[in-house]
Amino acid sequence: MPTSNPRQVPPQTVHVPLAERSYDISIGTGNLAQVGKWITSLRSVTHAVLISDTNVAAHYEKPVHQALEAEGIRVTSLVVPAGEPSKSVATAQKLWEAALEDRVDRKSIVVALGGGVIGDLAGFIAATMTRGLDFFQIPTTLLAQVDSSVGGKVGINLPAAKNIVGCFWQPKGVLIDTAVLETLPRREYLSGLAEVVKYGVILDEPFFDYLEANVQPLLDREPAALQKIIARSCELKAQVVAEDERETTGLRAILNYGHTYCHALETVAGYGEFLHGEAVSVGMLCASRLGEKLGVFHAPSTQRQHALLSALSLPVDTPQLDEAAILAAMQRDKKVEHGKLRFIVPLKIGKVELMADIDSEVAMSAWREGHSA
Amino acid sequence: MPTSNPRQVPPQTVHVPLAERSYDISIGTGNLAQVGKWITSLRSVTHAVLISDTNVAAHYEKPVHQALEAEGIRVTSLVVPAGEPSKSVATAQKLWEAALEDRVDRKSIVVALGGGVIGDLAGFIAATMTRGLDFFQIPTTLLAQVDSSVGGKVGINLPAAKNIVGCFWQPKGVLIDTAVLETLPRREYLSGLAEVVKYGVILDEPFFDYLEANVQPLLDREPAALQKIIARSCELKAQVVAEDERETTGLRAILNYGHTYCHALETVAGYGEFLHGEAVSVGMLCASRLGEKLGVFHAPSTQRQHALLSALSLPVDTPQLDEAAILAAMQRDKKVEHGKLRFIVPLKIGKVELMADIDSEVAMSAWREGHSA
Ligand SMILES: NC(=O)c1ccc[n+]([C@@H]2O[C@H](COP(=O)([O-])OP(=O)(O)OC[C@H]3O[C@@H](n4cnc5c(N)ncnc54)[C@H](O)[C@@H]3O)[C@@H](O)[C@H]2O)c1
Ligand SMILES: NC(=O)c1ccc[n+]([C@@H]2O[C@H](COP(=O)([O-])OP(=O)(O)OC[C@H]3O[C@@H](n4cnc5c(N)ncnc54)[C@H](O)[C@@H]3O)[C@@H](O)[C@H]2O)c1
Ligand SMILES: [Zn+2]
Ligand SMILES: [Zn+2]
Repeated sequence: MPTSNPRQVPPQTVHVPLAERSYDISIGTGNLAQVGKWITSLRSVTHAVLISDTNVAAHYEKPVHQALEAEGIRVTSLVVPAGEPSKSVATAQKLWEAALEDRVDRKSIVVALGGGVIGDLAGFIAATMTRGLDFFQIPTTLLAQVDSSVGGKVGINLPAAKNIVGCFWQPKGVLIDTAVLETLPRREYLSGLAEVVKYGVILDEPFFDYLEANVQPLLDREPAALQKIIARSCELKAQVVAEDERETTGLRAILNYGHTYCHALETVAGYGEFLHGEAVSVGMLCASRLGEKLGVFHAPSTQRQHALLSALSLPVDTPQLDEAAILAAMQRDKKVEHGKLRFIVPLKIGKVELMADIDSEVAMSAWREGHSA
Repeated sequence: MPTSNPRQVPPQTVHVPLAERSYDISIGTGNLAQVGKWITSLRSVTHAVLISDTNVAAHYEKPVHQALEAEGIRVTSLVVPAGEPSKSVATAQKLWEAALEDRVDRKSIVVALGGGVIGDLAGFIAATMTRGLDFFQIPTTLLAQVDSSVGGKVGINLPAAKNIVGCFWQPKGVLIDTAVLETLPRREYLSGLAEVVKYGVILDEPFFDYLEANVQPLLDREPAALQKIIARSCELKAQVVAEDERETTGLRAILNYGHTYCHALETVAGYGEFLHGEAVSVGMLCASRLGEKLGVFHAPSTQRQHALLSALSLPVDTPQLDEAAILAAMQRDKKVEHGKLRFIVPLKIGKVELMADIDSEVAMSAWREGHSA
């Protein structure tokens, strides 16, 4: 990783336009230490419940805690075990009780410091503690910075289903410091890049071009490249979310490009086998081949995605898994209506469409043809 | 109780104006069996999660279940133990899991059939299951019909605090059948009347006059009198809530008339000693005496309340309890700011005001002077 001076890149702001729930995402490099001033510039605060996980806390709890205290904010710092199992009712209950024990009240705020797990969990605590506390997010994984910090979906898992309990609860502000990505494990980082590629395919060909032209800076996590891709991803997701805040019009479904295959893959391979972004990478290529089979997408565009994803060290080959199980998982997916499969299919790089009534044999051949030769 | 023909009283509708969250309360006598048609007149439904408690289910689960099925609605009926302890994280978790197990999805609805405990609990499930399901309420206690069915507060308790975890989640409709009050234990019924008296004192002198003139029909639970007081109470609460939906302007605080003393009394006597409305009755008289001491309220108006509440068989005397504990409990109440006591104080029957900076000795003498002579 190059040791470029992080202050060289000027900070940027992305506005998320949601009427009275609008907020800004402040993106910078080395801006974590400004978190106290940033929050108090948004509202007056006397008490914050700071929620993070063990991995993140080891690196970043102290500077954030201190920056808040420096603004006269009393901090209740709660650290949960790193990993998806913390998105549970049991952990939520511990957090509710600990916050109450430390005198949370309706003027307190919740600050999420961590990846998507912490964002979803802390956001759910914010949405429900005293019927709703102001919520601030400091996403620390690339996935959280480009995806979960926009859209207001918060929640926890039940043993039988992910993200099944939760709310829509928009943050009052999101602070992104690209420098925190330096400590993110490489596999986690690359996994986040898959969602970035997704935004290019679904909405923005010039952005896809930019990614193709900047593979090395991205692999090197160069601050300027990071800021560029994070800001653009947030803008694109914000556009979609603004048009369909509560997922009622169906518009937000385009964000699920590659995700029907991805979810089936995650389920059948067993959660944890593939990181989410890795499964998205494989899934996007399946959806692209499906587009070819349906006659709406061209092989060279599939090739471009394949080349970019593999340059970014993401998996591109469909793994050998039980096909019947994959099909069954896809049929249980939310995008199935009355037994018929529905997919987000690309028409060209930068444009996708929801296509219903897809024949399962066609869908499975797009899966199968992704096996490595 | 007279066996008047319940169909004699024409049904009424109260509109709760909350912009895009507006809804209607349908009040009638013997309209429970129409619940299926009523819900399907509001939206199309294929699956309902019906939540009730053991007491309520014994009387009313079957007719409601059947009325829903008669409209082609698949019903998942979940019954929790009657009583406040069901407003817990553990019960919420069981309900989330049971609903999921029976294939709840984003188009499902939640129907609360019961008192305030069920309304709050089921409403919390509705607010959080798949990030928000449409919610319909069938309140079956007088308290729930005149109070908790308006305002959108839903939630559960933690061991250390009541109603501390929850959301604002407005129902899509409320159906009130006054006939279900026939099976309500007398003490529960009378307890609900205290909140009805409260609306008269805080907002509506003619309504207070009506209550004074109709004590016997009210004690007899006559359908016409019930419909009148329920409709007017809902209207009055709806007005207040419409002006301060999320309890941010302070306006909604007038609903807490009598409640600072009431909460202290409930806490110090031990939850369950006094029913909530019984403690409200005692608390309103304390607040009235406080108004006298502050020179803003007249003794004859305190007397009118005293006479009405005792005619309704509600407790009027302050019980002998540790005064230091009462004061400490009031100081912990939400209406305290920076150690100074704040009370909703009556100015005349039909008008109250939030008064801050109240001396604790004055507050306690208003308490003390309520002991029976
Ligand atoms: N709300 C939404 O819209 C949305 C969108 C996408 C995903 N999600 C959710 O996000 C979760 C996945 O998020 P994730 O991939 O960020 O997982 P995560 O939060 O578990 O983070 C991944 C790992 O990286 C560690 N980590 C985080 N930041 C670090 C840093 N800066 N340095 C070192 N280690 C760090 C974490 O401790 C964890 O071990 C899932 O639960 C998913 O459901 C939510
Ligand atoms: N959300 C709000 O705005 C709001 C307002 C006031 C109170 N509350 C909450 O409401 C709860 C108290 O409500 P409640 O007094 O209705 O208590 P409840 O729901 O426990 O009902 C009281 C008792 O009556 C039984 N019951 C209910 N309907 C019956 C019927 N028709 N026939 C026979 N038995 C019946 C119940 O099983 C229970 O035993 C508290 O938890 C309080 O926090 C909420
Ligand atoms: Zn994804
Ligand atoms: Zn009350």
